[in-house]
Amino acid sequence: MQGKLIVFEGVEGSGKSTQLARLQHWLVAHSAFQKLQTAGIVPELIVTREPGGTNLGRSLRSLLLDHQPETALGARAELLLYAADRAQHIEEVICPALQAGSWVLCDRFIDSTVAYQGYGRGLSLSLIEQLNDIATEGISGDLTFWLKLDAAQGLSRSRRRGSLDRMEQTHLEFHQQVQQGFETLAERHPERIVTIDAAVTEDTVAQQIQTIMEQKLKTWYRKHLPIS
Amino acid sequence: MQGKLIVFEGVEGSGKSTQLARLQHWLVAHSAFQKLQTAGIVPELIVTREPGGTNLGRSLRSLLLDHQPETALGARAELLLYAADRAQHIEEVICPALQAGSWVLCDRFIDSTVAYQGYGRGLSLSLIEQLNDIATEGISGDLTFWLKLDAAQGLSRSRRRGSLDRMEQTHLEFHQQVQQGFETLAERHPERIVTIDAAVTEDTVAQQIQTIMEQKLKTWYRKHLPIS
Repeated sequence: MQGKLIVFEGVEGSGKSTQLARLQHWLVAHSAFQKLQTAGIVPELIVTREPGGTNLGRSLRSLLLDHQPETALGARAELLLYAADRAQHIEEVICPALQAGSWVLCDRFIDSTVAYQGYGRGLSLSLIEQLNDIATEGISGDLTFWLKLDAAQGLSRSRRRGSLDRMEQTHLEFHQQVQQGFETLAERHPERIVTIDAAVTEDTVAQQIQTIMEQKLKTWYRKHLPIS
Repeated sequence: MQGKLIVFEGVEGSGKSTQLARLQHWLVAHSAFQKLQTAGIVPELIVTREPGGTNLGRSLRSLLLDHQPETALGARAELLLYAADRAQHIEEVICPALQAGSWVLCDRFIDSTVAYQGYGRGLSLSLIEQLNDIATEGISGDLTFWLKLDAAQGLSRSRRRGSLDRMEQTHLEFHQQVQQGFETLAERHPERIVTIDAAVTEDTVAQQIQTIMEQKLKTWYRKHLPIS
Protein backbone atom coordinates (compact mmCIF):
# COMPACT_ATOMS: atom_id res chain seq x y z
CA MET A 1 0.00 0.00 0.00
CA GLN A 2 0.98 3.61 -0.72
CA GLY A 3 2.94 5.33 2.08
CA LYS A 4 1.95 8.54 3.85
CA LEU A 5 3.17 12.11 3.52
CA ILE A 6 2.91 14.03 6.78
CA VAL A 7 3.68 17.72 6.68
CA PHE A 8 4.46 20.30 9.35
CA GLU A 9 3.50 23.89 8.58
CA GLY A 10 3.56 27.15 10.49
CA VAL A 11 5.22 30.55 10.85
CA GLU A 12 8.86 30.93 11.95
CA GLY A 13 9.25 29.94 15.57
CA SER A 14 6.09 27.84 15.69
CA GLY A 15 8.14 24.75 16.56
CA LYS A 16 7.74 22.77 13.33
CA SER A 17 11.21 21.27 13.29
CA THR A 18 11.13 20.37 16.98
CA GLN A 19 7.72 18.75 16.71
CA LEU A 20 8.67 16.90 13.54
CA ALA A 21 11.67 15.39 15.35
CA ARG A 22 9.51 14.51 18.36
CA LEU A 23 6.96 12.77 16.14
CA GLN A 24 9.74 10.84 14.45
CA HIS A 25 11.06 9.59 17.80
CA TRP A 26 7.56 8.81 19.04
CA LEU A 27 6.77 6.80 15.89
CA VAL A 28 9.90 4.64 15.94
CA ALA A 29 9.12 3.77 19.59
CA HIS A 30 5.41 3.15 18.93
CA SER A 31 4.38 -0.50 18.90
CA ALA A 32 1.83 -0.25 16.08
CA PHE A 33 4.29 1.63 13.87
CA GLN A 34 7.02 -0.88 14.75
CA LYS A 35 4.69 -3.71 13.65
CA LEU A 36 4.11 -2.00 10.30
CA GLN A 37 7.85 -1.63 9.87
CA THR A 38 8.66 -5.19 10.88
CA ALA A 39 6.00 -6.49 8.50
CA GLY A 40 7.58 -4.45 5.71
CA ILE A 41 4.32 -2.53 5.16
CA VAL A 42 6.08 0.74 6.01
CA PRO A 43 9.71 0.04 5.04
CA GLU A 44 11.08 3.44 6.00
CA LEU A 45 10.41 6.64 7.90
CA ILE A 46 12.00 9.49 5.99
CA VAL A 47 12.54 12.96 7.41
CA THR A 48 12.94 15.79 4.92
CA ARG A 49 12.18 19.44 4.34
CA GLU A 50 11.45 22.16 1.80
CA PRO A 51 13.36 23.89 0.50
CA GLY A 52 16.43 21.65 0.63
CA GLY A 53 15.30 18.03 0.57
CA THR A 54 17.66 17.06 -2.30
CA ASN A 55 21.20 17.95 -3.38
CA LEU A 56 19.75 20.37 -5.89
CA GLY A 57 17.41 21.66 -3.20
CA ARG A 58 20.27 22.30 -0.77
CA SER A 59 21.93 24.52 -3.37
CA LEU A 60 18.63 26.29 -3.97
CA ARG A 61 17.97 26.64 -0.24
CA SER A 62 21.16 28.62 0.19
CA LEU A 63 20.19 30.84 -2.76
CA LEU A 64 16.71 31.33 -1.30
CA LEU A 65 17.65 32.00 2.30
CA ASP A 66 21.05 33.67 2.10
CA HIS A 67 21.71 37.27 3.05
CA GLN A 68 23.77 38.48 0.11
CA PRO A 69 22.26 41.61 -1.40
CA GLU A 70 23.90 40.89 -4.78
CA THR A 71 21.58 37.93 -5.23
CA ALA A 72 18.48 40.04 -4.57
CA LEU A 73 15.64 37.84 -5.62
CA GLY A 74 12.54 38.93 -7.55
CA ALA A 75 9.24 37.59 -6.25
CA ARG A 76 8.46 35.51 -9.34
CA ALA A 77 11.98 34.09 -9.53
CA GLU A 78 11.68 33.13 -5.87
CA LEU A 79 8.38 31.37 -6.53
CA LEU A 80 9.85 29.45 -9.46
CA LEU A 81 12.87 28.37 -7.39
CA TYR A 82 10.58 26.99 -4.69
CA ALA A 83 8.68 25.14 -7.42
CA ALA A 84 11.93 23.74 -8.85
CA ASP A 85 13.02 22.58 -5.40
CA ARG A 86 9.62 20.93 -4.94
CA ALA A 87 9.58 19.22 -8.35
CA GLN A 88 12.98 17.68 -7.67
CA HIS A 89 12.00 16.73 -4.13
CA ILE A 90 8.80 15.02 -5.32
CA GLU A 91 10.59 13.13 -8.09
CA GLU A 92 13.73 12.13 -6.20
CA VAL A 93 12.51 11.63 -2.62
CA ILE A 94 8.78 11.80 -1.93
CA CYS A 95 7.24 9.81 -4.82
CA PRO A 96 9.67 6.86 -4.63
CA ALA A 97 9.19 6.69 -0.84
CA LEU A 98 5.39 6.78 -1.02
CA GLN A 99 5.38 4.19 -3.79
CA ALA A 100 7.47 1.89 -1.58
CA GLY A 101 4.94 2.31 1.25
CA SER A 102 7.26 4.47 3.37
CA TRP A 103 6.29 7.45 5.45
CA VAL A 104 7.68 10.91 4.75
CA LEU A 105 7.75 13.58 7.44
CA CYS A 106 8.27 16.90 5.69
CA ASP A 107 9.10 20.29 7.20
CA ARG A 108 7.02 22.69 5.00
CA PHE A 109 5.29 21.88 1.72
CA ILE A 110 2.77 23.45 -0.68
CA ASP A 111 0.86 25.40 1.98
CA SER A 112 3.98 27.37 2.90
CA THR A 113 4.25 28.59 -0.69
CA VAL A 114 0.61 29.71 -0.69
CA ALA A 115 1.01 31.37 2.72
CA TYR A 116 4.45 33.04 2.20
CA GLN A 117 4.49 33.84 -1.51
CA GLY A 118 0.76 34.26 -2.00
CA TYR A 119 -0.57 35.87 1.19
CA GLY A 120 2.82 37.25 2.31
CA ARG A 121 4.29 38.61 -0.92
CA GLY A 122 1.00 39.09 -2.71
CA LEU A 123 1.71 36.89 -5.72
CA SER A 124 -1.23 35.50 -7.64
CA LEU A 125 -2.79 32.59 -5.74
CA SER A 126 -3.92 30.93 -8.95
CA LEU A 127 -0.35 31.16 -10.29
CA ILE A 128 0.96 29.54 -7.10
CA GLU A 129 -1.61 26.76 -7.25
CA GLN A 130 -0.69 26.21 -10.90
CA LEU A 131 3.01 25.94 -9.99
CA ASN A 132 2.27 23.71 -7.00
CA ASP A 133 0.35 21.38 -9.31
CA ILE A 134 3.20 21.36 -11.83
CA ALA A 135 5.75 20.62 -9.13
CA THR A 136 3.82 18.01 -7.15
CA GLU A 137 1.84 16.33 -9.92
CA GLY A 138 -1.14 16.58 -7.59
CA ILE A 139 0.39 15.29 -4.34
CA SER A 140 -0.87 17.42 -1.45
CA GLY A 141 0.02 15.29 1.58
CA ASP A 142 -2.05 12.86 3.66
CA LEU A 143 -1.93 14.88 6.86
CA THR A 144 -0.68 18.39 7.56
CA PHE A 145 -0.12 19.67 11.07
CA TRP A 146 -0.46 23.44 11.08
CA LEU A 147 1.22 24.70 14.23
CA LYS A 148 -0.84 27.79 14.86
CA LEU A 149 0.99 30.55 16.65
CA ASP A 150 0.50 34.29 16.75
CA ALA A 151 2.97 35.80 14.26
CA ALA A 152 4.50 38.21 16.81
CA GLN A 153 5.02 35.37 19.28
CA GLY A 154 6.64 33.22 16.57
CA LEU A 155 9.05 35.99 15.57
CA SER A 156 10.05 36.68 19.15
CA ARG A 157 10.73 32.95 19.67
CA SER A 158 12.87 32.92 16.50
CA ARG A 159 14.87 35.93 17.68
CA ARG A 160 15.71 34.29 20.98
CA ARG A 161 17.10 31.37 19.00
CA GLY A 162 19.84 33.47 17.40
CA SER A 163 20.39 35.14 14.04
CA LEU A 164 17.46 35.47 11.66
CA ASP A 165 17.63 34.37 8.04
CA ARG A 166 16.35 36.48 5.14
CA MET A 167 12.82 35.18 5.56
CA GLU A 168 12.75 35.85 9.28
CA GLN A 169 14.04 39.38 8.93
CA THR A 170 11.15 40.58 6.84
CA HIS A 171 8.68 42.52 8.87
CA LEU A 172 5.95 41.47 11.25
CA GLU A 173 3.15 42.60 8.99
CA PHE A 174 4.35 40.11 6.40
CA HIS A 175 4.24 37.35 8.99
CA GLN A 176 0.72 38.31 9.94
CA GLN A 177 -0.34 38.00 6.30
CA VAL A 178 1.34 34.60 6.18
CA GLN A 179 -0.58 33.59 9.29
CA GLN A 180 -3.79 34.67 7.56
CA GLY A 181 -2.80 32.44 4.64
CA PHE A 182 -2.43 29.37 6.85
CA GLU A 183 -5.73 30.21 8.53
CA THR A 184 -7.52 30.32 5.18
CA LEU A 185 -5.90 27.09 3.98
CA ALA A 186 -6.88 25.28 7.19
CA GLU A 187 -10.49 26.41 6.72
CA ARG A 188 -10.48 25.37 3.08
CA HIS A 189 -8.84 21.94 3.48
CA PRO A 190 -10.14 20.45 6.74
CA GLU A 191 -9.79 16.96 5.19
CA ARG A 192 -5.99 17.16 5.34
CA ILE A 193 -4.98 20.10 7.57
CA VAL A 194 -5.20 19.74 11.34
CA THR A 195 -4.78 22.93 13.37
CA ILE A 196 -2.59 22.52 16.43
CA ASP A 197 -2.43 25.21 19.12
CA ALA A 198 1.31 25.92 19.28
CA ALA A 199 1.12 28.64 21.95
CA VAL A 200 1.20 26.03 24.73
CA THR A 201 4.23 24.05 26.01
CA GLU A 202 6.28 21.87 23.70
CA ASP A 203 5.09 18.76 25.56
CA THR A 204 1.44 19.70 25.17
CA VAL A 205 1.90 20.33 21.44
CA ALA A 206 3.62 16.94 21.06
CA GLN A 207 0.74 15.32 22.99
CA GLN A 208 -1.87 16.82 20.63
CA ILE A 209 0.06 15.58 17.60
CA GLN A 210 0.50 12.08 19.04
CA THR A 211 -3.21 11.78 19.80
CA ILE A 212 -4.10 12.57 16.20
CA MET A 213 -1.35 10.31 14.86
CA GLU A 214 -2.61 7.44 17.00
CA GLN A 215 -6.07 7.77 15.43
CA LYS A 216 -4.69 8.11 11.92
CA LEU A 217 -2.53 5.01 12.29
CA LYS A 218 -5.64 3.01 13.20
CA THR A 219 -7.66 4.45 10.33
CA TRP A 220 -5.00 4.13 7.66
CA TYR A 221 -3.83 0.63 8.62
CA ARG A 222 -7.13 -0.84 9.84
CA LYS A 223 -6.52 -4.02 7.81
CA HIS A 224 -2.97 -4.44 9.06
CA LEU A 225 -3.24 -3.63 12.76
CA PRO A 226 -5.27 -5.51 15.39
CA ILE A 227 -8.02 -3.40 17.00
CA SER A 228 -6.87 -2.38 20.47
CA MET B 1 10.83 55.13 -26.85
CA GLN B 2 11.02 51.51 -25.68
CA GLY B 3 14.32 49.73 -26.45
CA LYS B 4 14.76 46.54 -28.46
CA LEU B 5 15.40 42.95 -27.41
CA ILE B 6 17.39 41.04 -30.02
CA VAL B 7 17.85 37.33 -29.45
CA PHE B 8 20.20 34.73 -30.91
CA GLU B 9 18.95 31.16 -31.02
CA GLY B 10 20.25 27.89 -32.42
CA VAL B 11 21.68 24.48 -31.59
CA GLU B 12 25.11 24.06 -29.98
CA GLY B 13 27.87 25.06 -32.36
CA SER B 14 25.63 27.19 -34.56
CA GLY B 15 27.75 30.26 -33.80
CA LYS B 16 25.30 32.22 -31.66
CA SER B 17 27.85 33.68 -29.29
CA THR B 18 30.28 34.59 -32.07
CA GLN B 19 27.60 36.26 -34.14
CA LEU B 20 26.18 38.08 -31.16
CA ALA B 21 29.63 39.56 -30.44
CA ARG B 22 30.07 40.48 -34.11
CA LEU B 23 26.70 42.24 -34.20
CA GLN B 24 27.64 44.14 -31.06
CA HIS B 25 30.88 45.39 -32.64
CA TRP B 26 29.13 46.20 -35.89
CA LEU B 27 26.45 48.22 -34.08
CA VAL B 28 28.83 50.33 -32.00
CA ALA B 29 30.70 51.22 -35.21
CA HIS B 30 27.53 51.87 -37.21
CA SER B 31 26.78 55.56 -37.87
CA ALA B 32 22.98 55.34 -37.49
CA PHE B 33 23.30 53.44 -34.23
CA GLN B 34 25.93 55.91 -33.01
CA LYS B 35 23.51 58.76 -33.75
CA LEU B 36 20.82 57.07 -31.68
CA GLN B 37 23.29 56.63 -28.86
CA THR B 38 24.60 60.20 -29.01
CA ALA B 39 21.04 61.53 -29.03
CA GLY B 40 20.31 59.46 -25.91
CA ILE B 41 17.52 57.58 -27.73
CA VAL B 42 19.35 54.30 -27.19
CA PRO B 43 21.37 54.94 -24.03
CA GLU B 44 23.01 51.52 -23.83
CA LEU B 45 23.75 48.32 -25.73
CA ILE B 46 23.61 45.45 -23.27
CA VAL B 47 24.92 41.97 -23.98
CA THR B 48 23.52 39.15 -21.89
CA ARG B 49 22.52 35.51 -21.99
CA GLU B 50 20.27 32.81 -20.63
CA PRO B 51 20.80 31.05 -18.40
CA GLY B 52 23.14 33.23 -16.39
CA GLY B 53 22.29 36.89 -17.08
CA THR B 54 22.12 37.82 -13.39
CA ASN B 55 23.99 36.90 -10.21
CA LEU B 56 21.20 34.51 -9.35
CA GLY B 57 21.28 33.23 -12.92
CA ARG B 58 25.01 32.55 -12.78
CA SER B 59 24.46 30.33 -9.74
CA LEU B 60 21.60 28.60 -11.55
CA ARG B 61 23.63 28.24 -14.73
CA SER B 62 26.24 26.21 -12.92
CA LEU B 63 23.50 24.02 -11.41
CA LEU B 64 21.92 23.59 -14.85
CA LEU B 65 25.03 22.89 -16.88
CA ASP B 66 27.39 21.17 -14.46
CA HIS B 67 28.47 17.56 -14.75
CA GLN B 68 27.99 16.36 -11.20
CA PRO B 69 25.82 13.26 -11.12
CA GLU B 70 24.80 13.95 -7.51
CA THR B 71 22.83 16.94 -8.72
CA ALA B 72 20.92 14.84 -11.28
CA LEU B 73 18.14 17.08 -12.40
CA GLY B 74 14.55 16.04 -13.07
CA ALA B 75 13.01 17.40 -16.26
CA ARG B 76 10.37 19.49 -14.52
CA ALA B 77 12.84 20.88 -11.98
CA GLU B 78 15.11 21.84 -14.88
CA LEU B 79 12.26 23.64 -16.61
CA LEU B 80 11.39 25.54 -13.46
CA LEU B 81 15.02 26.58 -12.93
CA TYR B 82 15.18 27.99 -16.46
CA ALA B 83 11.96 29.87 -15.73
CA ALA B 84 13.40 31.23 -12.47
CA ASP B 85 16.55 32.37 -14.27
CA ARG B 86 14.38 34.07 -16.89
CA ALA B 87 12.05 35.78 -14.41
CA GLN B 88 15.05 37.27 -12.59
CA HIS B 89 16.72 38.24 -15.86
CA ILE B 90 13.59 39.97 -17.11
CA GLU B 91 13.04 41.84 -13.86
CA GLU B 92 16.66 42.80 -13.13
CA VAL B 93 18.18 43.31 -16.59
CA ILE B 94 15.87 43.20 -19.62
CA CYS B 95 12.83 45.20 -18.49
CA PRO B 96 14.78 48.11 -16.97
CA ALA B 97 16.99 48.30 -20.09
CA LEU B 98 14.04 48.27 -22.53
CA GLN B 99 12.20 50.86 -20.47
CA ALA B 100 15.26 53.13 -20.66
CA GLY B 101 15.29 52.75 -24.47
CA SER B 102 18.40 50.55 -24.49
CA TRP B 103 19.05 47.56 -26.70
CA VAL B 104 19.57 44.10 -25.27
CA LEU B 105 21.42 41.41 -27.24
CA CYS B 106 20.59 38.09 -25.63
CA ASP B 107 22.19 34.69 -26.21
CA ARG B 108 19.16 32.32 -25.99
CA PHE B 109 15.68 33.16 -24.71
CA ILE B 110 12.19 31.63 -24.67
CA ASP B 111 12.55 29.69 -27.93
CA SER B 112 15.45 27.67 -26.52
CA THR B 113 13.22 26.45 -23.70
CA VAL B 114 10.52 25.39 -26.16
CA ALA B 115 13.10 23.70 -28.41
CA TYR B 116 15.25 22.01 -25.72
CA GLN B 117 12.79 21.20 -22.97
CA GLY B 118 9.69 20.82 -25.13
CA TYR B 119 10.86 19.24 -28.39
CA GLY B 120 14.09 17.82 -26.94
CA ARG B 121 12.99 16.43 -23.57
CA GLY B 122 9.34 16.00 -24.48
CA LEU B 123 7.87 18.20 -21.76
CA SER B 124 4.41 19.63 -22.31
CA LEU B 125 4.58 22.56 -24.74
CA SER B 126 1.59 24.23 -23.13
CA LEU B 127 3.30 23.96 -19.74
CA ILE B 128 6.45 25.55 -21.19
CA GLU B 129 4.47 28.35 -22.79
CA GLN B 130 2.69 28.89 -19.50
CA LEU B 131 6.03 29.14 -17.65
CA ASN B 132 7.54 31.38 -20.33
CA ASP B 133 4.58 33.73 -19.93
CA ILE B 134 4.96 33.71 -16.15
CA ALA B 135 8.70 34.42 -16.41
CA THR B 136 8.63 37.06 -19.16
CA GLU B 137 5.33 38.76 -18.42
CA GLY B 138 4.70 38.53 -22.16
CA ILE B 139 8.04 39.82 -23.52
CA SER B 140 9.03 37.69 -26.50
CA GLY B 141 11.74 39.82 -28.12
CA ASP B 142 11.64 42.26 -31.05
CA LEU B 143 13.86 40.24 -33.35
CA THR B 144 15.22 36.72 -33.05
CA PHE B 145 18.00 35.42 -35.26
CA TRP B 146 17.70 31.67 -35.54
CA LEU B 147 21.07 30.38 -36.74
CA LYS B 148 19.93 27.32 -38.64
CA LEU B 149 22.48 24.54 -38.75
CA ASP B 150 22.14 20.80 -39.17
CA ALA B 151 22.29 19.26 -35.66
CA ALA B 152 25.12 16.85 -36.53
CA GLN B 153 27.19 19.67 -38.00
CA GLY B 154 26.58 21.81 -34.90
CA LEU B 155 27.65 19.03 -32.56
CA SER B 156 30.82 18.30 -34.53
CA ARG B 157 31.69 22.02 -34.42
CA SER B 158 31.15 22.05 -30.63
CA ARG B 159 33.38 19.02 -30.18
CA ARG B 160 36.26 20.65 -32.01
CA ARG B 161 35.95 23.57 -29.61
CA GLY B 162 36.87 21.43 -26.61
CA SER B 163 34.97 19.79 -23.77
CA LEU B 164 31.21 19.49 -23.99
CA ASP B 165 28.91 20.60 -21.19
CA ARG B 166 26.02 18.49 -19.90
CA MET B 167 23.68 19.80 -22.59
CA GLU B 168 26.14 19.14 -25.39
CA GLN B 169 26.84 15.59 -24.29
CA THR B 170 23.30 14.43 -24.70
CA HIS B 171 22.81 12.53 -27.86
CA LEU B 172 22.42 13.59 -31.46
CA GLU B 173 18.81 12.47 -31.70
CA PHE B 174 17.99 14.92 -28.97
CA HIS B 175 19.67 17.70 -30.94
CA GLN B 176 17.68 16.77 -34.01
CA GLN B 177 14.47 17.08 -32.03
CA VAL B 178 15.66 20.47 -30.78
CA GLN B 179 16.33 21.49 -34.37
CA GLN B 180 12.77 20.46 -35.26
CA GLY B 181 11.56 22.67 -32.41
CA PHE B 182 13.36 25.75 -33.77
CA GLU B 183 12.04 24.94 -37.25
CA THR B 184 8.46 24.85 -35.99
CA LEU B 185 8.89 28.06 -33.98
CA ALA B 186 10.33 29.89 -37.00
CA GLU B 187 7.35 28.80 -39.09
CA ARG B 188 4.91 29.84 -36.39
CA HIS B 189 6.42 33.24 -35.55
CA PRO B 190 7.68 34.76 -38.82
CA GLU B 191 6.92 38.24 -37.41
CA ARG B 192 9.81 38.02 -34.96
CA ILE B 193 12.04 35.05 -35.95
CA VAL B 194 14.42 35.42 -38.89
CA THR B 195 16.05 32.23 -40.14
CA ILE B 196 19.76 32.62 -40.93
CA ASP B 197 21.66 29.92 -42.83
CA ALA B 198 24.53 29.15 -40.43
CA ALA B 199 26.18 26.45 -42.57
CA VAL B 200 28.12 29.06 -44.53
CA THR B 201 31.22 31.00 -43.44
CA GLU B 202 31.22 33.15 -40.33
CA ASP B 203 31.60 36.29 -42.46
CA THR B 204 28.65 35.38 -44.65
CA VAL B 205 26.48 34.74 -41.60
CA ALA B 206 27.53 38.11 -40.14
CA GLN B 207 26.69 39.78 -43.46
CA GLN B 208 23.17 38.31 -43.50
CA ILE B 209 22.56 39.52 -39.94
CA GLN B 210 23.89 43.02 -40.69
CA THR B 211 21.66 43.37 -43.75
CA ILE B 212 18.57 42.58 -41.69
CA MET B 213 19.72 44.81 -38.83
CA GLU B 214 20.25 47.70 -41.24
CA GLN B 215 16.64 47.41 -42.41
CA LYS B 216 15.29 47.04 -38.88
CA LEU B 217 17.16 50.12 -37.69
CA LYS B 218 15.50 52.17 -40.42
CA THR B 219 12.06 50.75 -39.68
CA TRP B 220 12.23 51.04 -35.92
CA TYR B 221 13.77 54.53 -35.80
CA ARG B 222 12.16 56.04 -38.89
CA LYS B 223 11.30 59.20 -36.96
CA HIS B 224 14.77 59.59 -35.50
CA LEU B 225 17.04 58.79 -38.44
CA PRO B 226 17.34 60.70 -41.73
CA ILE B 227 16.35 58.61 -44.77
CA SER B 228 19.52 57.60 -46.57
